[in-house]
Amino acid sequence: MLGKYIENVRKNAPLVHNITNYVTVNDVANALLACGGSPIMSDEPDDVEDITSICGGLNINIGTLNKSSIIGMFRAGRKANELGHILLLDPVGAGASALRTDTAVELMDELKFTAIRGNISEIKTLALGSGTTKGVDADVADAVTEDTLDSAVTFAKELAGKTGSIIAITGAIDLVADAESCFVIRNGRPEMGRITGTGCQLSAVMTAFLVANPDSPLEAAAAAVCTMGLAGEIGWSRMQEGEGNSTYRNRIIDAIYNMDGETLDQGAKYEIR
Amino acid sequence: MLGKYIENVRKNAPLVHNITNYVTVNDVANALLACGGSPIMSDEPDDVEDITSICGGLNINIGTLNKSSIIGMFRAGRKANELGHILLLDPVGAGASALRTDTAVELMDELKFTAIRGNISEIKTLALGSGTTKGVDADVADAVTEDTLDSAVTFAKELAGKTGSIIAITGAIDLVADAESCFVIRNGRPEMGRITGTGCQLSAVMTAFLVANPDSPLEAAAAAVCTMGLAGEIGWSRMQEGEGNSTYRNRIIDAIYNMDGETLDQGAKYEIR
Amino acid sequence: MLGKYIENVRKNAPLVHNITNYVTVNDVANALLACGGSPIMSDEPDDVEDITSICGGLNINIGTLNKSSIIGMFRAGRKANELGHILLLDPVGAGASALRTDTAVELMDELKFTAIRGNISEIKTLALGSGTTKGVDADVADAVTEDTLDSAVTFAKELAGKTGSIIAITGAIDLVADAESCFVIRNGRPEMGRITGTGCQLSAVMTAFLVANPDSPLEAAAAAVCTMGLAGEIGWSRMQEGEGNSTYRNRIIDAIYNMDGETLDQGAKYEIR
Repeated sequence: MLGKYIENVRKNAPLVHNITNYVTVNDVANALLACGGSPIMSDEPDDVEDITSICGGLNINIGTLNKSSIIGMFRAGRKANELGHILLLDPVGAGASALRTDTAVELMDELKFTAIRGNISEIKTLALGSGTTKGVDADVADAVTEDTLDSAVTFAKELAGKTGSIIAITGAIDLVADAESCFVIRNGRPEMGRITGTGCQLSAVMTAFLVANPDSPLEAAAAAVCTMGLAGEIGWSRMQEGEGNSTYRNRIIDAIYNMDGETLDQGAKYEIR
Repeated sequence: MLGKYIENVRKNAPLVHNITNYVTVNDVANALLACGGSPIMSDEPDDVEDITSICGGLNINIGTLNKSSIIGMFRAGRKANELGHILLLDPVGAGASALRTDTAVELMDELKFTAIRGNISEIKTLALGSGTTKGVDADVADAVTEDTLDSAVTFAKELAGKTGSIIAITGAIDLVADAESCFVIRNGRPEMGRITGTGCQLSAVMTAFLVANPDSPLEAAAAAVCTMGLAGEIGWSRMQEGEGNSTYRNRIIDAIYNMDGETLDQGAKYEIR
Repeated sequence: MLGKYIENVRKNAPLVHNITNYVTVNDVANALLACGGSPIMSDEPDDVEDITSICGGLNINIGTLNKSSIIGMFRAGRKANELGHILLLDPVGAGASALRTDTAVELMDELKFTAIRGNISEIKTLALGSGTTKGVDADVADAVTEDTLDSAVTFAKELAGKTGSIIAITGAIDLVADAESCFVIRNGRPEMGRITGTGCQLSAVMTAFLVANPDSPLEAAAAAVCTMGLAGEIGWSRMQEGEGNSTYRNRIIDAIYNMDGETLDQGAKYEIR
C-alpha cells in the first residue's frame, strides 16, 4: 500500500531545490506545493550550493539547459551528494541533441543519483552513453507496451543495478525499478501527453517523495508515479464539455492537492515484478 | 474555406522549435499542443542547431532576448534556412529598445523568414529599419481600423513583397498578406489584450500551421490567425460570472484544443483584398 | 478608504518594467493586467535602460537572479532613479544564500527604493545587512502574530525611517509602513501560501499602484496589499469541491480582474498604527 508515502510528504513538507526548465517551472512549483512539498528554484552557479544546502533534495531537469545552468547543475549536484541529499535527474531531450546527451551522461558519470526519471527514449540514450561502446546494452523497444514489457522490465532493472539509481521510465505503462524489483504501473491517461510538463512535475514530486521517505526509496518513487497518474485520471473525470488541455493541467494539479493516502491506496494500479 | 489547414496540423503533428520569451512560454507550449503540434524549447547556442534539425519549423520570439539567446537565434535561424524549414519571427518590443529593434532588423537582414507576425507598431519599426534611410516607407497609421484599412493593406503587401515573407499584423483587425493578397480578419475579442501571451501563442501556432501546409503558406497563416481569434470568441462565450483574465487564458487554449475544421470554417470571418 | 487607489490604476494603466524570476513571471504579468496595469519584462543589461525609460515603474525581484540579470538590476535601477520612477525591491530568498543577501543589500545601498516588499525573514535579513555590525537592530520575531505585532510595527517603521522606503512585510498579518505610520492589514487566506507566486504578483501590483498614485505612496502600497488579500478571500469563496491550488491561482487573478473601488472599500480590513 503506497498511501503512507504521500502522507509522509504532507507531514514532512520537504524543501526541494529545482534546477529546471523555464517552460514548465511554474507548474513544477505548484505541483510540489500540491503534494505537500515546498519548492525553491535557483540555477546560478554562485547561488546553487547555498540553496541546495538548506533543502532535502535536488531535482535536476535539463529541459532548457544553458552553459551557465549546466555549471550550476554540477556544482549543486556535488554539494547534494556531499550532504547525502536526495538527487534526481530528469534528462529531458537526451538523444535529441549532443549537448543534452553529453550533459546527462556526464552528470551520471560524476554524480550519484538517487533516481533518474525519463521516457524510454531518454533512458535508452543514457544507457547507451554518448559513445557507442559505452553503457549497458539497451536491447529494448521504443515504447513500453504489453508486448515489450518483459524486456523493458529487464532493461530497467539492469540499468538500476549498473547505476545504483532507481530508474523510472514513464509512458503508457510506467516502470520504477531498482536492481531487484520493478513496479509496473498502469495509472494515467493518454491525454496527459497533450499537456506540457506532467513529466517535469512528476520528477519534482518524486524528489519530494524520496526526501520524505528515506527508508523506502523504491516504494516512494513508485508512489509518486501512481500519484501523478491517478491525479491524471481524477482530473480527467472532472472535465466539463468544452474544456481542453489548459484546464486539464489545472485539474491534475488540483487532484494532487486533494490526494490523500486512502485515495492513493484505492486508486494505485501496479504490480511488482 | 480554412478548416482543412487545422485538420492538416492535427494529421501531421508538426514539431516546432521555439526560441521564445520566458513570460509566456508555458502557454505557447500548451497552445501548440492544443492545435495538434508539438513544442520543443531551446535557446542555448550550442544546443539549437541539433534541436531545430529534428523539427519542421522554428519560431523566433525576441520577448526576453539576451546576449546568449540572440546568438542562439542566429545559429538556429541559419540552420533552419539551410534545411529549408519554416521560419517565423515575432519581433516583440521592436521599437521599444535599440537592442530589440536592431536584433529584429539584423535577423531579417541575415535570414529568410517564411512569416513575420507582430502588432502594427512592431511591424512598422521593422519596415523602417534601424536607420532612418533604410526600409520601405511606413506611411501607415498606428492602429489598423476601418478608416486606415486601405493604407494598412497596401503597407502589408508592400512589406511582404520587399521581404519575401508573409506579413501578419494583428490587432483589432488582423491582416495577413503576401505581395499579392491580403486576408483581412475580424475574429477575436478586445479582452484578449488583457491576457499576456495571446500574440506569442499565435506565432507558435502559425509556425505549426505553416509546417503542416507547405503548399499554401498564406492561407495557412490566415487560418492560424482565425483559429486564435475564434478561440478567443469561443472562450469568451464560456466565461462565467466572477471569472477574469486568468480563467479566460485557459478557456482560449481549451477552445484551440477543441477546434476542428468545421468549427473554423463556420466561425472564420475574413475577406481577401 | 482605499478603493480610489485601484480606480487610479485602472484609469492610468501604468506600464511596469519587471526584472523578475522565471518561476512566477506569467502570473505576475497576468496579475498586472488584471489590476489595470501593463507589464514589460526585460533583464538583459543592454536592454533594460531603454525599457525602463518608457515605463512608470520598475519591479526588481531577485527570485532566480543570475550574474547577467544582477547587472541588469543595477543598470535598470540607476536609470529608474535618475528618471524619478517608482522603484520596488522584492528580495526573494534574502537570507537563504549569500548571493541573494549580498545582492539585495547592495541594491539597497546603491539605489533609492520607493518600496521594499518581502516576508519577515527576508526583511529582517535586509535590516541586519550582510555584515553583523551593519543595519538596524532587527529585534523582531520570525513571524508577525498578534503577540509580536507591537515590536513588528516598530521594526517596520524604524526600517522605513532608516531606508526612506515604504516597508511592506507580508504574512498572516501584513504590515505596510513608512517612518510615521503603519497599516496593519488582516486580509488574505492561509491557503495562498500553497500557491507559488502570490508575493511576486503583489510586488508587481504594488508597483503599479505606486505609479498610479504618486501623491499617496503609503496608502497606495497598503491598497495593493488589501487588493491581493481580498482577491485571495474572494477567490477562495468561489472554490468548488475537488479544486485545489492550481485553480485557486486562477481564481485569485480573476478576482483582481473584477476588483473595483467599492469592493475594495468594503472588503479591506486594516487599522493604522
